[in-house]
Amino acid sequence: MPAVPKHRAPIVNAAVTLFRRQGYASTGLNDLVDASGAPKGSLYHYFPDGKASIAIAAVEEAGRRVAETMAKLARENRSTGDLLRAHARLLSGWMRNSGFRDGCPITTVLLELAPRDRGVSEAGRKAYAARLGVLRDKLVADGFSCSRAERLAVLCVSTLQGALIQSRVERTGAAIETAAAELAVLLEAAPLR
Amino acid sequence: MPAVPKHRAPIVNAAVTLFRRQGYASTGLNDLVDASGAPKGSLYHYFPDGKASIAIAAVEEAGRRVAETMAKLARENRSTGDLLRAHARLLSGWMRNSGFRDGCPITTVLLELAPRDRGVSEAGRKAYAARLGVLRDKLVADGFSCSRAERLAVLCVSTLQGALIQSRVERTGAAIETAAAELAVLLEAAPLR
Repeated sequence: MPAVPKHRAPIVNAAVTLFRRQGYASTGLNDLVDASGAPKGSLYHYFPDGKASIAIAAVEEAGRRVAETMAKLARENRSTGDLLRAHARLLSGWMRNSGFRDGCPITTVLLELAPRDRGVSEAGRKAYAARLGVLRDKLVADGFSCSRAERLAVLCVSTLQGALIQSRVERTGAAIETAAAELAVLLEAAPLR
Repeated sequence: MPAVPKHRAPIVNAAVTLFRRQGYASTGLNDLVDASGAPKGSLYHYFPDGKASIAIAAVEEAGRRVAETMAKLARENRSTGDLLRAHARLLSGWMRNSGFRDGCPITTVLLELAPRDRGVSEAGRKAYAARLGVLRDKLVADGFSCSRAERLAVLCVSTLQGALIQSRVERTGAAIETAAAELAVLLEAAPLR
């Protein structure tokens, strides 16, 4: 009996959640079957290359979700500073609600597998490009030049991703909200050149 | 035959290297024995509670190294901006020399084990406190108030730690050097209040 298409998304969603909470190496195929509710056969059907190909799909899906969230925040907020503050409140709330087990959905799997797994690294690069693009456009809208906005976008993404790690260790959202708020203040005080 | 004390440090050093490169879950006790050159008995002698207690020792050792490096850079550099640029050059060079396999020595193991492993989380909190303290003091020396310096230190640490992840995925030190340089410029342009 061929696996039905409806099972692919639950498998990928389970992978995003489990890889983020406990890492890639600690998550077995049986964990993915249990968490997704998909029959084991559907896992081999959609991912005949095994767990490494599920990691690629998980990074792609998580990257898509982060870029969508940031694009929505960019539309809802007046400036990059406000976007950063709003994103920090959102991330800090998600962290608190998960008992600080959730962080950036791509970081752990990227650190475990990049750069040696080429497919995962490539999916990671695309996920970065998407979120960097949203921030660059918002910084240009603030009045920064394109080249400066490209560079400041790297700073914004690094800051939030790094702060999520400290928040997880300290079991409080303080680092995320502090890092984002201080960066927002510095950006707002920066000369536009 | 009791294990001799000289084997503890090589085991911890091997753990720092392997956990950073491939993660905690992927590293077996035999990998640590092979990489350290220590006899297997010494591993059980020094770490009777097994791999989890090696993770704590590895985070403590890596945290100590990072704090020492930052304290040295703080002495050698005139301002926090210069410290950040110098640290970025150093990190980017280390990353390049390791084929982008090395990153922050505590990030991967913290993401895999915190917050559920209390010992590792506590070691992580101490590692953060040490590096945050060095940066706070340097920011105070720049002229920032103590409370602002505390908050800006969180931003500085988050930025470097986050940028290391992007550099690993992209196999270039560009993200580290860009994020640090842009943060340095913003700090140097910031009103001291």
